[in-house]
Amino acid sequence: MPELRKDPITERWVIISSERGKRPSDWTLEPKSRAGGFCPFCPGNEDKTPPEVRAIRPGTDQKNVPGWKIRVVPNKFPALQIEGELNRRGEGLYDLMNGIGAHEVIIETPNHLAELSDLDVEHIYDTLLIYRERILDLKNDTRFKYILIFKNHGASAGASLEHSHSQLIATPIIPKRVLEELQGVKKHFEFKERCIYCDILHQEMQMTKRLVVHTEDYVAMEPFAPRFPFETWLLPVKHYSHFESMELREYYGLAVVLKETLSRINRTLENPHYNFILHTSPVQEAPLMEYHWHLEIIPKLTKVAGFEWGSGFYINPTPPEMAAQHLREAQI
Amino acid sequence: MPELRKDPITERWVIISSERGKRPSDWTLEPKSRAGGFCPFCPGNEDKTPPEVRAIRPGTDQKNVPGWKIRVVPNKFPALQIEGELNRRGEGLYDLMNGIGAHEVIIETPNHLAELSDLDVEHIYDTLLIYRERILDLKNDTRFKYILIFKNHGASAGASLEHSHSQLIATPIIPKRVLEELQGVKKHFEFKERCIYCDILHQEMQMTKRLVVHTEDYVAMEPFAPRFPFETWLLPVKHYSHFESMELREYYGLAVVLKETLSRINRTLENPHYNFILHTSPVQEAPLMEYHWHLEIIPKLTKVAGFEWGSGFYINPTPPEMAAQHLREAQI
Repeated sequence: MPELRKDPITERWVIISSERGKRPSDWTLEPKSRAGGFCPFCPGNEDKTPPEVRAIRPGTDQKNVPGWKIRVVPNKFPALQIEGELNRRGEGLYDLMNGIGAHEVIIETPNHLAELSDLDVEHIYDTLLIYRERILDLKNDTRFKYILIFKNHGASAGASLEHSHSQLIATPIIPKRVLEELQGVKKHFEFKERCIYCDILHQEMQMTKRLVVHTEDYVAMEPFAPRFPFETWLLPVKHYSHFESMELREYYGLAVVLKETLSRINRTLENPHYNFILHTSPVQEAPLMEYHWHLEIIPKLTKVAGFEWGSGFYINPTPPEMAAQHLREAQI
Repeated sequence: MPELRKDPITERWVIISSERGKRPSDWTLEPKSRAGGFCPFCPGNEDKTPPEVRAIRPGTDQKNVPGWKIRVVPNKFPALQIEGELNRRGEGLYDLMNGIGAHEVIIETPNHLAELSDLDVEHIYDTLLIYRERILDLKNDTRFKYILIFKNHGASAGASLEHSHSQLIATPIIPKRVLEELQGVKKHFEFKERCIYCDILHQEMQMTKRLVVHTEDYVAMEPFAPRFPFETWLLPVKHYSHFESMELREYYGLAVVLKETLSRINRTLENPHYNFILHTSPVQEAPLMEYHWHLEIIPKLTKVAGFEWGSGFYINPTPPEMAAQHLREAQI
């Protein structure tokens, strides 16, 4: 059983894989290349993943067979385990609990060579609706306080498989960065009685210099104080605290802007590896006046974060205004 | 002039190099290899760095010539600039100030091929005393609230030059991770009236399973909830909030334990790239009952941090107890 352990100073929870830990030789030996280029996410290999929990498969009800458009499966090597009790406990001054949670993979396309931004808008729309649907399903399990949806695209962004996919992790705790954001927005709300993201959108739409894409319903922009070069945020103009609570048609506009934003990043930076992370409200919370869901896209350009991990101090050599201009001018 | 900008939500300050920003092509083109393997840190090339601010050079008073043992120079491409006013100001709802600060490089040895753990204890001791001396000098400039000392060892830890060196950045703000630690320890102190690091040391010395090196004066240990595999902390047993305020002889014991700890990591993980970061109290603060300086060593094993940056959520596949055992058993 994996463990969730809390750092007693910063109160950050981490997942420790206590059961089958990686030994020094697991770190020092070069990873073996995949024999014959086998891909467990390609059609025909459905039996190489755990049985699917959901699929969009036009024309048949049969499961775990080819013919699907999008497929959701449990992670074969889950960071957290779905069965069991949390069993919160102490070890001297430390706090820990069992590593209970869900870890799913959303395989976005049967086409091994396509990446998310290559898919047509309808297909991206379906993917976003699957995100929403999985959140709505998993939030019924009240052990789960947060549902984290993210994408690692490319080896240097942490992807172990090339085939385009996103991941979902449902956790019994709220990740530290989310808590920080919730505390930050609360401060602003107490002072101004307004959502700070709404204020940011208002100011950025007036200033325009950090905008990348702007439709009636969505804004893709470079933030004022980005940690990384070409870090890009995507926000709905209308205030929603929870990603999963929008009206169905609103995800279509999101698909349009996501496709355009990723295409501009790919064009400008020659198809960089990237991460995106959905920042949304804790699933068991009622709608919040002060928080505004958004998507953070981080191209993996700097070879390392170096000391940033340890210090929380970031040096960004590309001003966001310059990044925004290059992204706006990209020919797509 | 670089800018310090504050993220309005998380209140994290970042350095934005506004003057000579990196364009997309700076990120997509492969870095050129250094012509003829030229190293500006090697003896004989003293004129290729800015003039030294300090050196240990037995037998001569002449500056910027060979014959030194340790040499401190301003960074040729500083992240922050030492001359000027802070000029704190707003831009709509955002906060920023001029990027005032110091950025120095401590060249630890004239030998291009030696790394820190190869140096003898006396030499490491001298390096630590230089850290102390630079802090004591720079804290006289009251614009500086924090002095960050760190080492990037190896390209995948962010080092752009191979020759063994550490860096020092003096900043007009306190980095977020330091603030988090200060807030965390305060909570414990208010509750227990004790330093949490002293409590951790006490518990770890009793349990022993996470200890790596233990002398009368220092402990090197794997923390209970490490973010990264083989993340190692080095702490003085005696309570000191500020690194620079120990008695001179106490740095000798630190040199002994640092050399042994790095040697154990190098042996176990086959000379990994690593970062270390000195966590100490803000320089303008009087001694603090609740904070305890320490050094965090992070071997760079996982190829990427992936979504961890965005979520603050870490998955560590090597339990610290297993890491500690391997490090203890290493034959050095």
